Amino acid sequence: MRIAATDERRLIRAALEYVGVEEPAAEVQAEWLVEADLRGHPSHGLQRLPVLVGRVRNQVANPISRPRAEWIGVNAATIDGDRGLGPWVGTRVLEMLLERARVGGVAVGAVKNANHLGLLSLYAERAAAAGMIAIVLTTSEALVHPWGGRDALLGTNPIAIGVPASPEPFILDMATSAISMGKVLAYRQRGLDLSPGWAVDDGGEPTLDPEAARAVSPFGGPKGYALSLAFELIVASVSQTALGTEVKGTLDVEHPSTKGDLFIVVSPTQFGADEGSTARLGDYLEQLRASPPARGSEGVAIPGDGARVRRQDSLRTGVDVPDVLYDECQRLAPGFRVAA
Amino acid sequence: MRIAATDERRLIRAALEYVGVEEPAAEVQAEWLVEADLRGHPSHGLQRLPVLVGRVRNQVANPISRPRAEWIGVNAATIDGDRGLGPWVGTRVLEMLLERARVGGVAVGAVKNANHLGLLSLYAERAAAAGMIAIVLTTSEALVHPWGGRDALLGTNPIAIGVPASPEPFILDMATSAISMGKVLAYRQRGLDLSPGWAVDDGGEPTLDPEAARAVSPFGGPKGYALSLAFELIVASVSQTALGTEVKGTLDVEHPSTKGDLFIVVSPTQFGADEGSTARLGDYLEQLRASPPARGSEGVAIPGDGARVRRQDSLRTGVDVPDVLYDECQRLAPGFRVAA
Repeated sequence: MRIAATDERRLIRAALEYVGVEEPAAEVQAEWLVEADLRGHPSHGLQRLPVLVGRVRNQVANPISRPRAEWIGVNAATIDGDRGLGPWVGTRVLEMLLERARVGGVAVGAVKNANHLGLLSLYAERAAAAGMIAIVLTTSEALVHPWGGRDALLGTNPIAIGVPASPEPFILDMATSAISMGKVLAYRQRGLDLSPGWAVDDGGEPTLDPEAARAVSPFGGPKGYALSLAFELIVASVSQTALGTEVKGTLDVEHPSTKGDLFIVVSPTQFGADEGSTARLGDYLEQLRASPPARGSEGVAIPGDGARVRRQDSLRTGVDVPDVLYDECQRLAPGFRVAA
Repeated sequence: MRIAATDERRLIRAALEYVGVEEPAAEVQAEWLVEADLRGHPSHGLQRLPVLVGRVRNQVANPISRPRAEWIGVNAATIDGDRGLGPWVGTRVLEMLLERARVGGVAVGAVKNANHLGLLSLYAERAAAAGMIAIVLTTSEALVHPWGGRDALLGTNPIAIGVPASPEPFILDMATSAISMGKVLAYRQRGLDLSPGWAVDDGGEPTLDPEAARAVSPFGGPKGYALSLAFELIVASVSQTALGTEVKGTLDVEHPSTKGDLFIVVSPTQFGADEGSTARLGDYLEQLRASPPARGSEGVAIPGDGARVRRQDSLRTGVDVPDVLYDECQRLAPGFRVAA
């Protein structure tokens, strides 16, 4: 079925508030799920709501969290998320860092004890809208094998990067795995073959059979593996959080979240950039878009362009939600009715 | 021929000082070239000396540069390299940032108007030896096509990341291109086929023919391209330097260097890490190394391990230098004689 974004937002808020989540935290968590669906990333959309509600019920997510920031330097902070919902903690951290970077040129925040951040690109978008570069890293459950290995020992360790440019900012958001484990499961359900390079079997050999897939592959071979590992180490080191198979609590409803998040915010303006600079970056992106396509290709895409188009479309047409998911979410929000 | 590292170092110093480079700048530039050769990266070793000498002669590299740093915040600086040699500028910037990060937890430096930084891993190693995480980015001449395109519009945009761990730090240093243009040229000279995914022809189609290669491919398909582009934008934006085809001066002897460099230094200690933390990271790296290899693989490697082994070997056996290169370098350093 199709549901309007405004209704999806009310549905999510109702479900979260029903289990005691405070209004401002429910509001931002709802925004994060809806915006993921609008951009065509259902894995980070409404689909996450049952797990989030389950985590609140099981007290591994705190519905009335009070994140505690400690400035360990003028431009660096550690944050204990008090088991709060990810976007609730993440947006507060981001605001705090944007304020410091506006004066000092840079600000870094390392977060532990917070739940799943949700779609990372939204933090990068917020920063870019405020004229700031943001780099956001977060660790996640070990589902990815190291290059040359067969055991799942690395997270999908995504990265988001936002850079202000005019007329549109550059917004990158990607996992360092070739695909998500969710995609493997979806292919398994539908009996479809995986593509080469996506996953390995028990012996560590590439497999196209989703039933045989035991670990997801890093993107980009040894280099992608190396970057994924670097991100895992940086986040764990700075936020004092778990590594590898010790990372838990973003996919289940039982374990406290042991992953970490790292936000790096840089102000190009403080470094001397002006309107001419953001226009220059925009011109370069336009040069890439307009450059001749490789034979057989649809041309050069800039990260973030597709999400913008899909969002505009979905705002008009509504968001596609599987009936079974919608029914489940409605049961979580007894008071919710679609607006007349 | 084989040459001892100490002799290579004296040879480079003699050639640089012959064209007027001050002793401390010649010393650190020599260290950078020798260390690259010792680690098995000849593209960043002695091979670069003739271009560096040519650049000094043509006054696009300044033999007596005085880099100027301006602190735009307590933990952020812009640096004008005064056309200095890259490692001379880069090491001064790094020292300055390490000092600030030791107190403030983080420090960022954006560099313009400096020559080729040389092997990036050495900055990451220095930072890690001082107990600091470092992320080093630098832009370079446009040799890489955007994903879906055919024109070379992106630099090889390398990244180095150092993370303190015990007993050995994690040191990553990689280009965001599949290979270097130098490798294409080497294959062309030897009449060898390229591997799939390395380069495209005039039509943007993958080619194995080094003669037909017009642009190098980004590593890792669309995701590698996206990261490379992100790095290009971040560096240009913060250091106010050139983008795409406007980047010049790291491979030729005529153009002033228009690329930029970005150093981000973070102190895990300030963020709460202790000796237990670096041991924990080291244990995790050991777990990866010891994990079962994929069938047919030699097992899991950790970035930086190979370079450490090669360096130890080369210190014992000397560095392999093509005769023609050695002769050329000797002509650049009339006073130099191999130690008896």
